[in-house]
Amino acid sequence: MPFTYNRSVRFQDTDAAGVVYFTNILGICHEAYEESLEAAGIDLKAFFSNPAMAFPIVHANVDFLRPIFCGDKLLVNLMPQKLSGEKFEIAYEISLADVLVAKAITRHVCIDVSSRSKQELPSEIINWLEMNRRDAEEAERRKARETM
Amino acid sequence: MPFTYNRSVRFQDTDAAGVVYFTNILGICHEAYEESLEAAGIDLKAFFSNPAMAFPIVHANVDFLRPIFCGDKLLVNLMPQKLSGEKFEIAYEISLADVLVAKAITRHVCIDVSSRSKQELPSEIINWLEMNRRDAEEAERRKARETM
Amino acid sequence: MPFTYNRSVRFQDTDAAGVVYFTNILGICHEAYEESLEAAGIDLKAFFSNPAMAFPIVHANVDFLRPIFCGDKLLVNLMPQKLSGEKFEIAYEISLADVLVAKAITRHVCIDVSSRSKQELPSEIINWLEMNRRDAEEAERRKARETM
Amino acid sequence: MPFTYNRSVRFQDTDAAGVVYFTNILGICHEAYEESLEAAGIDLKAFFSNPAMAFPIVHANVDFLRPIFCGDKLLVNLMPQKLSGEKFEIAYEISLADVLVAKAITRHVCIDVSSRSKQELPSEIINWLEMNRRDAEEAERRKARETM
Repeated sequence: MPFTYNRSVRFQDTDAAGVVYFTNILGICHEAYEESLEAAGIDLKAFFSNPAMAFPIVHANVDFLRPIFCGDKLLVNLMPQKLSGEKFEIAYEISLADVLVAKAITRHVCIDVSSRSKQELPSEIINWLEMNRRDAEEAERRKARETM
Repeated sequence: MPFTYNRSVRFQDTDAAGVVYFTNILGICHEAYEESLEAAGIDLKAFFSNPAMAFPIVHANVDFLRPIFCGDKLLVNLMPQKLSGEKFEIAYEISLADVLVAKAITRHVCIDVSSRSKQELPSEIINWLEMNRRDAEEAERRKARETM
Repeated sequence: MPFTYNRSVRFQDTDAAGVVYFTNILGICHEAYEESLEAAGIDLKAFFSNPAMAFPIVHANVDFLRPIFCGDKLLVNLMPQKLSGEKFEIAYEISLADVLVAKAITRHVCIDVSSRSKQELPSEIINWLEMNRRDAEEAERRKARETM
Repeated sequence: MPFTYNRSVRFQDTDAAGVVYFTNILGICHEAYEESLEAAGIDLKAFFSNPAMAFPIVHANVDFLRPIFCGDKLLVNLMPQKLSGEKFEIAYEISLADVLVAKAITRHVCIDVSSRSKQELPSEIINWLEMNRRDAEEAERRKARETM
């Protein structure tokens, strides 16, 4: 199974139009990323404030398929993928009661914080990528078998 | 036991000083309030976008006792109290590994949305107040017995 | 000249990595959109909480070219474009001291709020699109002449 | 005149109840603080990510007197005051068309970041306090004369 994250939509996530403010869905995706890092044994405080190495997002996109309301119980599926020695991408599927309500992607590059030049992904991220990749592939195979 | 809410500190909650941005602790308290309403059977979407009745916050305060970092596993205790026929207050204690890290209060008034005049608290809020009050009192008594 | 919006980066926009949290750049773009609507004589309160008509974002994307820090004086250029009778798109260029630091797009669809079905863009949005389109085209022509 | 900060209420500041989400008023107050520091010649990036010295907020409170809507043009008055050698407090008055809509206070303590122990306020903050104090006192005297 790919990594999944459960998240209730909060009042703070909404705006005066009565639905989730668009950028907050990307924030919820980032929470799923944080949870999956932690599930792989990574210390979040050290990871996100490491003075030597960072993984800034260089691209993000999101598609909204249905309105999302306060109290909605979202399920976020996270599927990361290595793009190169220094880059990875995460695809997210956000669903509500088995209906897809949004999809998103974040692309991350590993950098040296002081020079801000690219550097090789460290082993902890390689492990996390492999762990989640394998889980996603198994889920794909299972789904393929079920639909045969 | 008073109502408790578990909340991991997210990267988004932090600022460039490396700790949680101060207003986000109040936002986390509001999440605890939402969870406790839901635990009392209240539909959050209907409650927070009711065109007839609302419960705006008229006062809030917060004290910070320790710095709070990304990844910290916070526990929020929530203790609501009726102040008058139209008002209630919630006290929050935020702790980390049994150490109190912040305390907060929000004060809410029940209003008619169109006129914005005060009105009596509805039965669902009275029930929620009684439910949580009783739980908090029991916890107090238990604590008193234990320290005897 | 295309519509431009000046925005100082706030402490609240940053995260523990010391730079702007990625979703906040999209929020800053939305502020530019709000300012441009207001500059076209649109009342923001009525526009964004109209119970009959809304313009939800169905797609957004953002590319980050440079890190952005607290106190940075951003300039946001906004270039909207009609996509169909019910849809428009806004392209944003975010620069700092004449250097492009980020680019973004938001795509909006006009809906009837209760049925959530698509409907024709109203005249106030058509006017706003034409006003900003003409300005952007003039800027393009001027730039072309200058580089001849 | 005390330092004043002009701020339009953004769509992002609102929630599904159609008004400003309560914590965002404190965030707007913090923006006024940032602007006043900058007006006193303080570099915000260096100030807020100084690895040696920080000014965390140890207490904040806010009172809401009127609902605040998207598009509202707020004026924030900022009045800082030294509390001790290591502490200062800022009082904020938020008004809309000369009507007070909210009031807030933030209390800050100067600390050594690594030990998190209190330390003396640096000269740049002493200067900023004196500059804003004098301005606030003059405004008080002027107001007193006008009402005589």
